[in-house]
Amino acid sequence: MSTYDLVIKNGKIVTSGDSYVADIGVKDGKVIEIATCIDGENVYDAKGKYLIPGGIDVHTHLDMPFCGTFSSDDFLTGTKAAAIGGTTTVVDYAIQPGGKTLKDAIDIWKEKAEGKAVIDYGFHLAVTNLDDQARKDLPELLKNGFSSFKVFMVYDGMRLSDKELLEILQIAKDNDGLVCVHAENYDSINYNIAKLLADGKTDPVYHAISRPQKCEAEATNRAVKLAEMVDAPIYIVHVSNREAADVIARSRQEGFKTMGETCTQYLLLSIDNYLEPDFAGSKYVMSPPLREGFNNELLWDSLKFSKLQTIATDHCPFFMEQKKMGLNDFTKIPNGAPGIEARLALIYHNGVNEGRLPIEKFVELTSTNPAKIFGMYPKKGTIAVGSDADIVVFDPEKEVTLSVDNLHENVDYTPFEGFSVKGYPVATFSRGDLVAENGEYVGSEARGQLIKRGKPQLV
Amino acid sequence: MSTYDLVIKNGKIVTSGDSYVADIGVKDGKVIEIATCIDGENVYDAKGKYLIPGGIDVHTHLDMPFCGTFSSDDFLTGTKAAAIGGTTTVVDYAIQPGGKTLKDAIDIWKEKAEGKAVIDYGFHLAVTNLDDQARKDLPELLKNGFSSFKVFMVYDGMRLSDKELLEILQIAKDNDGLVCVHAENYDSINYNIAKLLADGKTDPVYHAISRPQKCEAEATNRAVKLAEMVDAPIYIVHVSNREAADVIARSRQEGFKTMGETCTQYLLLSIDNYLEPDFAGSKYVMSPPLREGFNNELLWDSLKFSKLQTIATDHCPFFMEQKKMGLNDFTKIPNGAPGIEARLALIYHNGVNEGRLPIEKFVELTSTNPAKIFGMYPKKGTIAVGSDADIVVFDPEKEVTLSVDNLHENVDYTPFEGFSVKGYPVATFSRGDLVAENGEYVGSEARGQLIKRGKPQLV
Amino acid sequence: MSTYDLVIKNGKIVTSGDSYVADIGVKDGKVIEIATCIDGENVYDAKGKYLIPGGIDVHTHLDMPFCGTFSSDDFLTGTKAAAIGGTTTVVDYAIQPGGKTLKDAIDIWKEKAEGKAVIDYGFHLAVTNLDDQARKDLPELLKNGFSSFKVFMVYDGMRLSDKELLEILQIAKDNDGLVCVHAENYDSINYNIAKLLADGKTDPVYHAISRPQKCEAEATNRAVKLAEMVDAPIYIVHVSNREAADVIARSRQEGFKTMGETCTQYLLLSIDNYLEPDFAGSKYVMSPPLREGFNNELLWDSLKFSKLQTIATDHCPFFMEQKKMGLNDFTKIPNGAPGIEARLALIYHNGVNEGRLPIEKFVELTSTNPAKIFGMYPKKGTIAVGSDADIVVFDPEKEVTLSVDNLHENVDYTPFEGFSVKGYPVATFSRGDLVAENGEYVGSEARGQLIKRGKPQLV
Amino acid sequence: MSTYDLVIKNGKIVTSGDSYVADIGVKDGKVIEIATCIDGENVYDAKGKYLIPGGIDVHTHLDMPFCGTFSSDDFLTGTKAAAIGGTTTVVDYAIQPGGKTLKDAIDIWKEKAEGKAVIDYGFHLAVTNLDDQARKDLPELLKNGFSSFKVFMVYDGMRLSDKELLEILQIAKDNDGLVCVHAENYDSINYNIAKLLADGKTDPVYHAISRPQKCEAEATNRAVKLAEMVDAPIYIVHVSNREAADVIARSRQEGFKTMGETCTQYLLLSIDNYLEPDFAGSKYVMSPPLREGFNNELLWDSLKFSKLQTIATDHCPFFMEQKKMGLNDFTKIPNGAPGIEARLALIYHNGVNEGRLPIEKFVELTSTNPAKIFGMYPKKGTIAVGSDADIVVFDPEKEVTLSVDNLHENVDYTPFEGFSVKGYPVATFSRGDLVAENGEYVGSEARGQLIKRGKPQLV
Repeated sequence: MSTYDLVIKNGKIVTSGDSYVADIGVKDGKVIEIATCIDGENVYDAKGKYLIPGGIDVHTHLDMPFCGTFSSDDFLTGTKAAAIGGTTTVVDYAIQPGGKTLKDAIDIWKEKAEGKAVIDYGFHLAVTNLDDQARKDLPELLKNGFSSFKVFMVYDGMRLSDKELLEILQIAKDNDGLVCVHAENYDSINYNIAKLLADGKTDPVYHAISRPQKCEAEATNRAVKLAEMVDAPIYIVHVSNREAADVIARSRQEGFKTMGETCTQYLLLSIDNYLEPDFAGSKYVMSPPLREGFNNELLWDSLKFSKLQTIATDHCPFFMEQKKMGLNDFTKIPNGAPGIEARLALIYHNGVNEGRLPIEKFVELTSTNPAKIFGMYPKKGTIAVGSDADIVVFDPEKEVTLSVDNLHENVDYTPFEGFSVKGYPVATFSRGDLVAENGEYVGSEARGQLIKRGKPQLV
Repeated sequence: MSTYDLVIKNGKIVTSGDSYVADIGVKDGKVIEIATCIDGENVYDAKGKYLIPGGIDVHTHLDMPFCGTFSSDDFLTGTKAAAIGGTTTVVDYAIQPGGKTLKDAIDIWKEKAEGKAVIDYGFHLAVTNLDDQARKDLPELLKNGFSSFKVFMVYDGMRLSDKELLEILQIAKDNDGLVCVHAENYDSINYNIAKLLADGKTDPVYHAISRPQKCEAEATNRAVKLAEMVDAPIYIVHVSNREAADVIARSRQEGFKTMGETCTQYLLLSIDNYLEPDFAGSKYVMSPPLREGFNNELLWDSLKFSKLQTIATDHCPFFMEQKKMGLNDFTKIPNGAPGIEARLALIYHNGVNEGRLPIEKFVELTSTNPAKIFGMYPKKGTIAVGSDADIVVFDPEKEVTLSVDNLHENVDYTPFEGFSVKGYPVATFSRGDLVAENGEYVGSEARGQLIKRGKPQLV
Repeated sequence: MSTYDLVIKNGKIVTSGDSYVADIGVKDGKVIEIATCIDGENVYDAKGKYLIPGGIDVHTHLDMPFCGTFSSDDFLTGTKAAAIGGTTTVVDYAIQPGGKTLKDAIDIWKEKAEGKAVIDYGFHLAVTNLDDQARKDLPELLKNGFSSFKVFMVYDGMRLSDKELLEILQIAKDNDGLVCVHAENYDSINYNIAKLLADGKTDPVYHAISRPQKCEAEATNRAVKLAEMVDAPIYIVHVSNREAADVIARSRQEGFKTMGETCTQYLLLSIDNYLEPDFAGSKYVMSPPLREGFNNELLWDSLKFSKLQTIATDHCPFFMEQKKMGLNDFTKIPNGAPGIEARLALIYHNGVNEGRLPIEKFVELTSTNPAKIFGMYPKKGTIAVGSDADIVVFDPEKEVTLSVDNLHENVDYTPFEGFSVKGYPVATFSRGDLVAENGEYVGSEARGQLIKRGKPQLV
Repeated sequence: MSTYDLVIKNGKIVTSGDSYVADIGVKDGKVIEIATCIDGENVYDAKGKYLIPGGIDVHTHLDMPFCGTFSSDDFLTGTKAAAIGGTTTVVDYAIQPGGKTLKDAIDIWKEKAEGKAVIDYGFHLAVTNLDDQARKDLPELLKNGFSSFKVFMVYDGMRLSDKELLEILQIAKDNDGLVCVHAENYDSINYNIAKLLADGKTDPVYHAISRPQKCEAEATNRAVKLAEMVDAPIYIVHVSNREAADVIARSRQEGFKTMGETCTQYLLLSIDNYLEPDFAGSKYVMSPPLREGFNNELLWDSLKFSKLQTIATDHCPFFMEQKKMGLNDFTKIPNGAPGIEARLALIYHNGVNEGRLPIEKFVELTSTNPAKIFGMYPKKGTIAVGSDADIVVFDPEKEVTLSVDNLHENVDYTPFEGFSVKGYPVATFSRGDLVAENGEYVGSEARGQLIKRGKPQLV
C-alpha cells in the first residue's frame, strides 16, 4: 500500500530512553509506523546516521524590540537558521508592551510569526504589568494554549515585584501553568552600574562586573523560595553558573517542583570573552553575563545529574552596528547574542563526544524535556508513533568548523567562531517535510504553525 | 500480508523515555513494527492498559543450596511465578561450589535451568575461590556471555578478601565485566553473633541486630573505594538503607562508575517485622536484614533522584519448615524470602500511584536499567522495534490484595501478605508468546533460553 | 595588703576555653588577680559553684515605642531583671525615629538609659532612613563606640531596600562596623496578611502562618548574598529555623564573614504555642514567629557546630492588656515577648545538662562571642585579668521552676511558665559590685554605664 | 613575700579562649597566680611577646625500633629539640613487641625515657597482639594513667583485624579509654606494592603511589563505622587528606565521638616532594604518604571548621644513611621524618600569619585539645591558675629560615629546609623551669616526668 508520504530508512533512532535501528513511516506529518523494514516511494536513506527528535529551543527572542531597534533575526530568518541547525520548534517570548494587554502581546507576536515562521512555534507570555486585566486574561490564555508565563525580576518597565511574582505563581498553580523567571537582583545591578559609570568604566567587560554571579544566585533563590511558599512549579531561565544551579538542585532535592534551564553559551564561553579587543567583547553582552570559566564544567555536571533540565539558547542577535549603541556605555549595548542554529551540534560535540553526557541525555535536554515541560509532549520531543514527524538526521562523522560564514542567522558574527565540532545535522524534517538539507533551507515558506500547548509536565 | 505472529492493539506503550498509544506487531519473537494501526490474525486487545517492557529481576536465587537444603523455588516454579507477575527475564547467581571451577558452576546452573525455566535467564558468576584457574576462566566467561561477577564480602567459604576483590575489579575492568558485591562487614557480624548467642539471644530479631546498618554501610564504602582505586565499575546488590545508598550517591557524584540496587522488601518492610510472634519473624530473615522504617522513604527518594539504579528482589524462598532449622538459633535460619512475583505490582502501586516515581522511572528501574547494566539491552528492557517481544499488559485499575493464596511462588508465605495494590499485570508475553494471563501460567513448558549477555552499560 | 575590693573564693571559673578552680581578686571593678589563694576583707565564697562571665544579651528592646505604646520593661526594670538572671551587659536597639537623625536616636536612647540602667549597656544603631545625613553620621558614630548597625528588611517606615542594605554594608565594611539584619521577606508577608484577613483569619496563630519559615530563609539568603557581594561582615539576628541557619552555615563554609544569632525561645518553644486558648497564643507573637518544633533540635545542633554564634533574647515584653490591641486582628498584636532574665538558666539546663553543649560552649554563646562580635572583648565576655569583674556565681544544683511569680521582668507572663531548670545564678557581680543575690536586686541604682564599643571581631 | 619561684611579666597570655596582658606567678612548677602586676626575684620579662601554653605533641616515635634500626632521636635528643621548639609534652607510642605483653611495652618505653627525657611525657599503648593477657592488662593500664590505645590497621606483625579493633573499641568504651587508629587499607597496599615491584618501580615516589588517598579514606571510614557501631570514641591519627578528613567530619556531624589529627607535613608538603632527585625523595617517606597539593588548603579548612581537632608531628626521624636501606626498594625505606621541633613555628606562621586560623585556634590545636583528648587537662594545655607552668614565650616578630643547621633534631635533614617563618619560640618553661632559650637547651638533664593521664575528654 502506498500509505506513506515519507519513509526514513536505516537510521539509528535515538530518543531520551532508547536507541535502536529501524525504519520510520510518516503520513500527514505524523510518525505512523516504526518497523524493521518499511518501503515507500519517498525514501530518505539515513544509514549510518542518528535520527533524533527535532530540537526544541524554548528560549528565543525573534524580532524583539529593544530600545528603538529590534533583534536582527525575525521569524523568517531565525526559524530558517533553526531548521538548518536541527531545531524544529521554538517557543518565543511574547512580551507585553507598556500600556497593552497580554492578549495584545499575543496578537503582536502572532503577526510577527505568521507568514514568516518555517517551523512550529509557541509563545510564552511575558507579563510586565500585572493589573486586573492581566489577572482576568491569564487563566484564559493558559487554557488556550499559552501555558507558560515569563516574569522579569529586572529591567525597568518590565520587572514585577516579589509580591506580584508570588501572585502570579499562585495563578499559575491554580490554572496548570508554569512561571519562567529571569532571575537577577535589580538593586545590586543598579548600585554597581552607578558606581562603575561614575568611575568611567564603560567597556563591555563592566557589563559582566555589574551583574555578578551572586546577584543571579540571590534572585534565583528568592524566586525559588517564593514558589516553594505556594508550592507552585517554577522554571528558572538561562542559569549561568553553579551557585544558581545549586539553588535549583537543593529545591528539587527537597521535593519542590523547581526546574532550570541553561544555554549553550554558559557551557562553552566565559567572562574572558568580554576582554576581546576593539569592542569585540560586546558580542557577548547578554544578561545574565558569561561567568568565570570554572562554571562551564560545573554546569555540565549539573546537567548530567539532572540538576538542570534543559538547554536553550536565549537567541537574541544584534548586528555589531547595533551593538555600537553602547560604544561609550556598556549599559546601552543591546543585550543578546545569536545561538539558535548551532545549539545541537555544539552540545552534541562537547557533551556526547567529550563523554559528559550520554546521547540519550543530549536528546532529553535539547528536545524531550523542553517538550514535556512546556506542554508539547508527545506531539513534540520524541520519535514515537503518533508524534509529529519532526526528525533530524544527525551525522556523527560530519566535521564542521563554525563560522559566521557557514551559519544562517541574520547577524554578522557568531560567539562560537572557530569552534570545531564533529557531528552535525544533515537533514531536518518538520512534520514530515524535508525543510533543511546539508546546510540549506529547502522547505516551503511560511509553513510554521502556532502550537496550542497543554499542561506543563514536571521533569 | 499475514506478517505478524501477534498484534497487540490499543495499549499505551510505556518505556523509560516515552508513553504513547500504538499497536505492536510481533514476528519470530521480536517487535517488528509499532504503528498507529496494525491488523493481524492473532490480536490481543490492550485497550485501557499499559504495555510495559517485561520486568527483569537481576537478583534471584532459584534452587540455591543452603546448608543441606535448597531454596524452594526452582527454575520451573520460580520462573512461572515470575511470568505471572510480569517478569520475563531473571539473572540468577551461579555460585561456584567449594572445590569446583567457575565453569563447573555454570554447568551446574545450566542443568538447573534447562528444561525448567519458562522465561529467559542469565547467570552472574559468583566467584568464591579466586585461584589461577578462576583467573584464567574469568576473561573467557566474560566474553562468552557471562558478563557480570558476584563477590561476597561475608559467608565463610564464599567470601573474598579485599585483595581478591581488588584483583577481580581489575579483571572486570580489563575485560568489560561488572562486579556485583554483597557488602557487609564480616568481622563485626561474627563479633555480634558471638555476643548475642552467648547472651542467649536466639530469636529472629537478633539476626537484624547482629548485622546493623553500619556494618553494611562500612562494607559498601570499602567495596566502592576499592573500585574507585582501579576506576572499575561496581554494582552493589541489595542496598537496604540510606547510609549505604549515600555512599553510592557520593561516589557517582564524584564521577565514578558506581551503581546500586535495592529490593522491594527494603522499600516496604522494616525491622519491626522481626517481632512478629511465634517465630513468624523468621519469614523476614535475609541478609542484609530489614532496617528501621525511616529508611523506606529515604530509599524511594534515592531511586527518584537516580542515586540507586535498579529494583530487584533477592528472591530466595524457604518454607517455614525449612526456616525452623533456626528455631533455637537465628544464625541457623535459612536466609532469604520470596518476592519474584509481586515486584512490579508492589513498586507500581507504592511508587507510581503514591506519587513517588513517574511511571517511566518505574519502567527504568525494573526493566530498562537492569537490561542495560547487565548487557541485555536493547534485546531486553524496552519496547522498541528490534527488541524481544517481552511485553507486559498492565491494568492500572486492577485491584489485588496480595496473599500466599493468590501468588504462585513455591513457598507457604509471602512477606507482603495483606498488602493491597491497584495496578496489576494481566498478561505477559515472552518473545511474543502469551505465557501468563490473569494470574495463570498459560505458556508452554521449558521455553526459557539462556541469554548471552554483552558488555555492561553504565547508567 | 588590703589590695582588693572583693575576693571571690573557691569557685570553678569557666570561660569559653577553660575551667579550673581558683580565687579571684577584684579592684576598681576589674579582675586584677586570679590565684590559687587570695585573701581579703570582702570575700564571697563560691565553693561548689561555677563562676562564669556575666551574660551579654545583644538583642533587647527596652522602652521601645510600638504603635502608641512601649515595651513594658524600661532600662530600670529590664536591667534589674537581667542582673538577677546573670546578665551584666545589654546591647539595645536605638531605633532612628521617622524624621530624625541617627544622632537623635542615640540621644533619645541615652536618655532612656541614663539614670535607670543598673548594668552596662550599648546601643546598636537601627537605621531606618539612609539619607545624606545618615551617610555622614554613620562613619562618625561607628568610630565613637556605636560599632554596629541594624537594618530591617520589613516594617513600613523602617525597612531599607536591597540597594540601601548594600550601601550600608559597604559603609560598615569601610569603617570597621557590623551590620545586623532583621531578615524577612516583606512582600510575601503582606501578601499573606491580606489573604488571611480577607478570609477572616485573625487569631494569633495566623501571625505565624503569615510569616512562614521560607520568608525568613529567603531574606536571610538575600542579605547574606548582598554582604558576600561586597565582602562585608554581616550578622543575622534572631534566626528561628534551620533553613535560615543553613544559609549562614553555607556562607561561612565558603569563607565569608557571616554570623548568626538565635534566641532562647526558638530553641525551646514552637508554633504549637500559638494555639493556646483564650488569646494566650498572643504571648508568643514576635517576628520571626516560633516555628515547627523539629527546628528546636536542629538549632541546638547549629550552635554545637558553630553554625550560629550567639544566643540572645530579643526581649521586648508587653502586658497582656497591651497584647489585646490585636484581639481581633493578629497584625495589631504588639510584637515581642520577655526573656531577658531566664536566658542563662534555660540555656544551661537545656544545653549543658541535656548534653547538647559543653559548658564552655554555653559561656561562649551567651557571653564571649557576643562580647567579641560587638567590640566589647576583653573588657566583657570573659573572666581574665584585666577584664571587668562581671561575674556570675552559678549554682549547678539549684532547681527552679520558672514562673511569672519568681521572675522580675515588668510584664504579667513568661513564655517559659512552668519550665523547670537545674542550675541557676545565685549572685551577680557587675564591675565588682554585688548587684543581685538569690533572686533579688541588691545593687545601687542607676549604676549602669554606656560602653564605648570597638571594632567587631569575627568569630 | 618571696612567694614565687618565677614571675613572667608583661606578656600577652593566649589560651584557646582568651588573650590578654598579665603577669604570671609560678611556684613549685605550677601557675599559682595571674595578675595585673606581680613582682618577684626571678623575673622573665615577656613584653611584646605571646605567652602560650607549652606545645603538646601527641604523636611521636622516639627511639622506635624499625627493621633492625631505630628512629634517630631518642628521648634525650628528641625532647631537647621539642623543648627548644616550644613543645613541653610528648605522648609517644609504646609499641607492644612481638611475644611480649603490654606491660612489657610500658617497661621498655619507661626505660627509654627515664633518665633521658627533659620534658614531660606519656605513652599510648600500641596494641599489636590482643590476647587474653592483653584483655586483662588493658583495663588496668587504662586506669593507671595510660588512657589511650593505638591500633594499626596495617603492618605485618602489628595490625589488628576489624574484629579485634571492634573488641578494643568496646574495651576502651567500657574503661574510659580512647582508641587511636592508624588507618590504611592493608590489602590494597600489598596489592599495589606487588604490582609496582614487579614492574621494577622502586623509587621513593612509588611509596606514595602504593598507598593512595583512597586506601586511607577507606580504612578511616571502616574504623569510624566500627566505633560508631559500639558508640565508642575514636581518634584517627595523621589524617593526610580531605577525603579522610571528611569521613571524620560527617561522623561528628551525626553526633558520634569521632576525632582526627593531622600533622604539620600534610599541611605544607605534597607528593611532589617525592620527586626530588638523588633519592632525596626518601626524606618524605612516611605513612600515610604526602598527598596531592590541593589537600593542603582543604586540611587547613578542616582545622578552621573544627572537623579535625589536633596537629601533631608523627616525628620519627632517620638519617639519610638509614633511609638508604631502601635505595633499591621503596618498601625498605624506613618510614618517618623529623618534625618535633618546628611544629609551632610552622603552624603559627602558615596558620595565623596567613589568616587561616585565629591565634586562639592555633593554641587549641597544638596544645589545649591534645591535653583534653588525652587526659592531661587542665594540668597541661592551658595557662591557668593551678596548671603546670608549661609556658612558651613566643616572639611574633622573630624571623627564622628553617634549616637542618638551626634545628636540634638528631638527624641530617629537615623536610622543611628553607621554609621561612615569622614568629618563633624564644623561651620555654616546663613546670616553671626555663628549659630552652633562643634556640638552646638550657635546662637540667633528665628532668622529664611520666604523666599519669586521666579520662579522655571529647572535643
